[in-house]
Amino acid sequence: VNDQHTVDTRSRLVAAARGLFWSQGYHATGIAQILAEADTGSGSLYHFFRSKEALLLAVLDQYLELLDPVIVEPAFARTDDPLERIDALLDVYRDGLLTSGFVGGCPIGNLALEASDLGPEVRERLGRNFRRWCERVEICLAAALPSRSETTRATLATFVLTVMEGAVMQARATRDIAPFDASVEHLRHYLAHLATEAQPA
Amino acid sequence: VNDQHTVDTRSRLVAAARGLFWSQGYHATGIAQILAEADTGSGSLYHFFRSKEALLLAVLDQYLELLDPVIVEPAFARTDDPLERIDALLDVYRDGLLTSGFVGGCPIGNLALEASDLGPEVRERLGRNFRRWCERVEICLAAALPSRSETTRATLATFVLTVMEGAVMQARATRDIAPFDASVEHLRHYLAHLATEAQPA
Repeated sequence: VNDQHTVDTRSRLVAAARGLFWSQGYHATGIAQILAEADTGSGSLYHFFRSKEALLLAVLDQYLELLDPVIVEPAFARTDDPLERIDALLDVYRDGLLTSGFVGGCPIGNLALEASDLGPEVRERLGRNFRRWCERVEICLAAALPSRSETTRATLATFVLTVMEGAVMQARATRDIAPFDASVEHLRHYLAHLATEAQPA
Repeated sequence: VNDQHTVDTRSRLVAAARGLFWSQGYHATGIAQILAEADTGSGSLYHFFRSKEALLLAVLDQYLELLDPVIVEPAFARTDDPLERIDALLDVYRDGLLTSGFVGGCPIGNLALEASDLGPEVRERLGRNFRRWCERVEICLAAALPSRSETTRATLATFVLTVMEGAVMQARATRDIAPFDASVEHLRHYLAHLATEAQPA
């Protein structure tokens, strides 16, 4: 029973921090608010985490675990076509913007811009989340653009992430989906061009 | 003398807020820190600005004023070629990342991700800064891609901003210029493709 209670308290703390960091940002979230949301005391917090930054590390680790089951797999289940899978992945973020009233966006991107003054461990986790995302896109690119080099496909996956993050940022800032759609449309055009160019004549 | 003093105090407040919001973020910056940096008291602050958010509005207005003289004109002075001018504009942000140790990036983008919970006036200013930036890119695109429609050039300018912001974000998060360079390289390739495609055969 005690072990279960321990797991529950830690999970509640991570879940509360994840929700609050997502909706209002890391710096804007106070420890007291996390404790209230998790319905626990500061003793519990410091039992599991040495600092607010350590809690952020746990949140980022959880995002990494959730990427496949929550984001990638549902998106990829919608189609077998590799370029359409990339579209479906980007659509997850589009839907997130629309259903959250432009508050949501990409939680990793949000934390990335806030966290440049945080420690190397945070940056390492951010980088790990970005890389995992890109690896999933690379699977699609390997199928869609088999004649391109691995290096090209790797930089192209980074480019897809760049477009997603920049598009989400503009949509959030202006509460308008138009810049997101415009950007994704050009990305789609570019990928289609690369796919055509790669075909034997 | 008094008028000059008034101007100076207001300017010092805006400059201090601009620097602190840029280096550590909006939410992480306290009023007391702004006052210390501006070497003035809270009476002065509330004489000029009704709130921290009002000060943010003044900072965003100043960024809009500074865009041409500080960013666009020096970049465009480096070359007459329109696509090279876009490269030069993106290079300003690349240099900013490298010389600041990846702390800097795009101040508007940083504020955009933090400011989604702020009021419509802030978002309007963010949008105005983004639009002005895109208008400058559209001038280059009109010269480089004269046969494309105005609508296409407008969405393409948005795409260029998207790539800049997403690329800056990843570089800042990981303190590595590689994702920035990879993304800009693909953007360059796409723009070159559009320019070629637009040529009469």
